[in-house]
Amino acid sequence: MRYELYYWPEIQGRGEFVRLALEEAGVAYVDVARRPGGTASMLKLLDGGAVDRPPYAPPFLRAGKLLIGQTANILSYLGAQHGLAPAAAAGRLWTQQLQLTIADLVDEAHDTHHPIASSLYYEDQRKEAKRRTADFLANRVPKYLGYFEDVLAHNRAGDKHLVGGRLTYADLSLFQIVAGLRYAFPRATARIERRHPRVVALHERVARRPRIAAYLASKRRIPFNEMGIFRHYPELDR
Amino acid sequence: MRYELYYWPEIQGRGEFVRLALEEAGVAYVDVARRPGGTASMLKLLDGGAVDRPPYAPPFLRAGKLLIGQTANILSYLGAQHGLAPAAAAGRLWTQQLQLTIADLVDEAHDTHHPIASSLYYEDQRKEAKRRTADFLANRVPKYLGYFEDVLAHNRAGDKHLVGGRLTYADLSLFQIVAGLRYAFPRATARIERRHPRVVALHERVARRPRIAAYLASKRRIPFNEMGIFRHYPELDR
Repeated sequence: MRYELYYWPEIQGRGEFVRLALEEAGVAYVDVARRPGGTASMLKLLDGGAVDRPPYAPPFLRAGKLLIGQTANILSYLGAQHGLAPAAAAGRLWTQQLQLTIADLVDEAHDTHHPIASSLYYEDQRKEAKRRTADFLANRVPKYLGYFEDVLAHNRAGDKHLVGGRLTYADLSLFQIVAGLRYAFPRATARIERRHPRVVALHERVARRPRIAAYLASKRRIPFNEMGIFRHYPELDR
Repeated sequence: MRYELYYWPEIQGRGEFVRLALEEAGVAYVDVARRPGGTASMLKLLDGGAVDRPPYAPPFLRAGKLLIGQTANILSYLGAQHGLAPAAAAGRLWTQQLQLTIADLVDEAHDTHHPIASSLYYEDQRKEAKRRTADFLANRVPKYLGYFEDVLAHNRAGDKHLVGGRLTYADLSLFQIVAGLRYAFPRATARIERRHPRVVALHERVARRPRIAAYLASKRRIPFNEMGIFRHYPELDR
């Protein structure tokens, strides 16, 4: 079976968390919307009518007969299929709990540049974006990264992974968070991450994994840009 | 086993989605923070140090040895334990997908009154709240409710439930969404919900379920107020 990933073709965005899991799993997948006509196929599935159980928004994954939406839900599925999460219920729930906390951080990162409405341009909410980002960098990022630092420090199997002694999709996602924050807010992130050495070390370790390193060096990895979740607007990076 | 729910004692908030599932399941639970000294117990678990796998934020649920955080993750667990979700993988994933979409709507409802920072008072972001709420009511609520209306209309087992022919935790949560929107934005919601008769009918049906009706009439149901997610500020309700 070849997976079909549906996500906006121009950005990393939320789809990137799924791409990283697919790449680390080493499974065959098509990034549908990056092929000719693919975006139209994706929009058709969103419209409703085409399927009984339409997703609300990308990303979504076709896995045989299943069409799975919501990033964390897709990762829960892939984690179980490809050993990217523990098999036991307790570890599975904990991995998903961490992923949902990462998803909250992703939502907040998005809203730094779109605090008023996704339907408006950044330029039409820049003043509000400055206020929101100041709080995000002063309070929210340190709280989230401090939390993940604590989780790593308290992991009885060692501080190399968020869950137990093996890589999970939550580690891949935390890698992406650090990458995104560094791109969007290089100055603030350099300052904040000094206090979270385990999070930074995890990021570096994930980046060196053979399949992830190959992916990051390939054209499959879309560069960060100012259409995605993590955007670099210098005026927001104090 | 008696469950222990940890959530802020003054509000419905995100904890309410868990309370509704516990009530419908008819299981014994303690709403810990509503007991004397309970909030301190809750904060201690959040601090880290007390447990190896600390939650990032309330709500969280103690279920025997498990401490489960993140609303949708708690519901996934309770759904499997108490027949509030299908047993088969496809139905389980679909129920969770819907719940995560509801969670996105909850986040957006929160941000209507706190578009800049949770750490600031509403009064310090009222101007931004007006702009954000205008978009929320004009674009976002109709899109979300339209989506759930479509899901109900396309359900091959009938339009009485979101998933198959039986109640799931996603139905309970959609009930709560309608209740919250009606409280926070009575004028706008009255206008919007006319176009979503299946969603409204689902709300009414859930409210009439014996255990839910008994819960809603009890003191265990905390009234809506201006500390929770759904707040009624008349100036935001066009």
